Amino acid sequence: MKTPSEVYPVLEAFAPAGAEELPLGESLQRILAEEIVSPIHLPPFNRSTVDGYAIKARDTFGASESNPVLLRVVGEVLMGVATEIVVSHGETAQVPTGGMIPRGADAVLMLEFSERVDERTIQVKKPLSPLENVTEQGEDIKKGEKILTIGHRLRPQDMGAMASIGKARVTVYRKPRIAIVSSGDELIDITQEPGLGEIRDINRYSISAQVEMAGGTPLFMGIARDSFENLKSLSERGLHISDMLIISGGSSVGTLDYTTEVIKSFPDSEVMVHGVSLRPGKPTIIGRSGAKPVVGLPGHPVSAMVVFDLFMKPLIWRLSGHGGSPWPLGKRISAVLARNVSSPPGREDYIRVRAEEAEGRVLAHPILGKSGSISTMVNAMGLIKIDIDSEGLEAGTLVEVLLF
Amino acid sequence: MKTPSEVYPVLEAFAPAGAEELPLGESLQRILAEEIVSPIHLPPFNRSTVDGYAIKARDTFGASESNPVLLRVVGEVLMGVATEIVVSHGETAQVPTGGMIPRGADAVLMLEFSERVDERTIQVKKPLSPLENVTEQGEDIKKGEKILTIGHRLRPQDMGAMASIGKARVTVYRKPRIAIVSSGDELIDITQEPGLGEIRDINRYSISAQVEMAGGTPLFMGIARDSFENLKSLSERGLHISDMLIISGGSSVGTLDYTTEVIKSFPDSEVMVHGVSLRPGKPTIIGRSGAKPVVGLPGHPVSAMVVFDLFMKPLIWRLSGHGGSPWPLGKRISAVLARNVSSPPGREDYIRVRAEEAEGRVLAHPILGKSGSISTMVNAMGLIKIDIDSEGLEAGTLVEVLLF
Repeated sequence: MKTPSEVYPVLEAFAPAGAEELPLGESLQRILAEEIVSPIHLPPFNRSTVDGYAIKARDTFGASESNPVLLRVVGEVLMGVATEIVVSHGETAQVPTGGMIPRGADAVLMLEFSERVDERTIQVKKPLSPLENVTEQGEDIKKGEKILTIGHRLRPQDMGAMASIGKARVTVYRKPRIAIVSSGDELIDITQEPGLGEIRDINRYSISAQVEMAGGTPLFMGIARDSFENLKSLSERGLHISDMLIISGGSSVGTLDYTTEVIKSFPDSEVMVHGVSLRPGKPTIIGRSGAKPVVGLPGHPVSAMVVFDLFMKPLIWRLSGHGGSPWPLGKRISAVLARNVSSPPGREDYIRVRAEEAEGRVLAHPILGKSGSISTMVNAMGLIKIDIDSEGLEAGTLVEVLLF
Repeated sequence: MKTPSEVYPVLEAFAPAGAEELPLGESLQRILAEEIVSPIHLPPFNRSTVDGYAIKARDTFGASESNPVLLRVVGEVLMGVATEIVVSHGETAQVPTGGMIPRGADAVLMLEFSERVDERTIQVKKPLSPLENVTEQGEDIKKGEKILTIGHRLRPQDMGAMASIGKARVTVYRKPRIAIVSSGDELIDITQEPGLGEIRDINRYSISAQVEMAGGTPLFMGIARDSFENLKSLSERGLHISDMLIISGGSSVGTLDYTTEVIKSFPDSEVMVHGVSLRPGKPTIIGRSGAKPVVGLPGHPVSAMVVFDLFMKPLIWRLSGHGGSPWPLGKRISAVLARNVSSPPGREDYIRVRAEEAEGRVLAHPILGKSGSISTMVNAMGLIKIDIDSEGLEAGTLVEVLLF
């Protein structure tokens, strides 16, 4: 039996499932398997940030209402076109927002502040500083600059940054394929009408969805009956076509043993974790065959989901190439515990909570109920942890809610 | 010109794009278009939560170490099978975890606490309460109970709950299709080599990715040149095949006018928002043609992303059937501002920040840089708001970071 914090180092043994090259547009939320370095300056030329007149800032020094400076308009810069115009002392050229600053100019007078004297002349009534209303070449991204690192999960702005430097194909880690086997003599497919004593297979759907949310591709292999042979044959097939195998177990002692035996029957296999001092989630098994994780999750839907959130999500992130290792992962909010909860010491307790905003603070209401009760998860928005040595938490304690 | 808080009511005018029926396994993260009511009790029968012996609790009242109660074993319940066994006074039957409690029994003695006296007899040394180690029929979900409501976004546990009641097909709102047109004479496709004065189209990629993250399907229509005819023809085609059209504009005055003109040229059209007192993001246009939103986003990548986060994300959620209306949407964390930021009153300012954990608190470091600078978004993890009437915030202020 391991404590939860002893389980995390075990997960570090696994490596990303491999890399592939994708068109940029298909790489959102994937994890980078290459470092992104800019081959160009961005912007590639000095650009105007306003519609106005490109000038030499020097020419306007000392300009004022009573002493305006006159500049001769020598042309107009068009968008998207390399301009041949050169702005010399006493001259100016019209530029649009985003347009290229012509040679010789180093600032742009906003259209609103300019005054046309005649067809070919404007007057300027206040001084401009050098680079006013100008984005310099390379100001955003410099040639040779490292923009993104290996292990980074791609967000919309990262897609934009890669587009800006012409990174049309990108090498990312593969989405890991996760094979799932449900096991239990009482389980039936959800499309079937259960007879007395039978139960529809919940975990297939909740675990597949958790795999998807974690960035993996779930592959459901079927329901195994509680026998070594049946569980082994479905598991073997699953392991063969995937990067990781999850056996969602019946929770009876028999199934636990079968799961362990099945793992041990695979080539180059090992069982590293056999039970975790955790509630819900004690009957958790983590093993491997070769480089692939093979895990046994508890059969109770709530236990399976909690164990998934704590250990399987970071494990799938790891197989997906995620760089950092903040175990366990996920977003958190602070909240005030609405009432006392007790917990026997010697195991980490995870309490489902519902959050409610009241009087400017967030209250976390514990949801009680058995670990087989899926409706308690539907009503919950996250979990709070009670430490392994603690006997509980008092109402009013500031707690951290690990959001689903 | 509208303030940001005046924009939100405008968005309320739009309705979901329509509904469709999907297999349960394909409905994750979709939004329910039907109420989910359970047609059955869950569990459908009284179940044991442990491996043990089903008994009449009454029979054990008064049992103790010195005065054990003897019970006759009348059979064994098998998993997944309706049992015919009836437990009468003085009798017991073996049950596995998850197994059906036989008629007559109302509690289960854990295997660990039982003692076999002979082949057909066990002894019990402590009293059990009625329903001990039993999950009652309907304890998780009752027949006729409303489990999920219209407008709810489906999470893994909701998939599990629907599986549990045999909901194999589910009616959800359609994923809205969002057509995107980039416009600007200086823009080129990212696969092209830019000449002097040309810039690769960033917004196509960052906005498409934001659409995906918000739950829509992006449809890129192409780059329109800065002319009314070209912009109109691409936009018309986009509007025709989608539920919403986004024109990512050049930011020059000309393009803004074209966007407005194009919207007005569509049948049954209206421009409701023409400019927002917001930085970055002032040149934002929100209109409609029939029931479909047609919007113009600023051309600067940062401005476009901020306006998307504030207004387009909730709008796409709305088209996707999202029930609540907490505008603007998104996860938030509390942080301490690391240094002073100033803001001219009269507009809402959104400052990009980088967050850093230090001494047990989160510090938000403002990232300065022009609204054309995509790298500032890459370095940021969220935005902080400076209210429309505020002149800025001082270092040390507790701020709320709206996470990307």
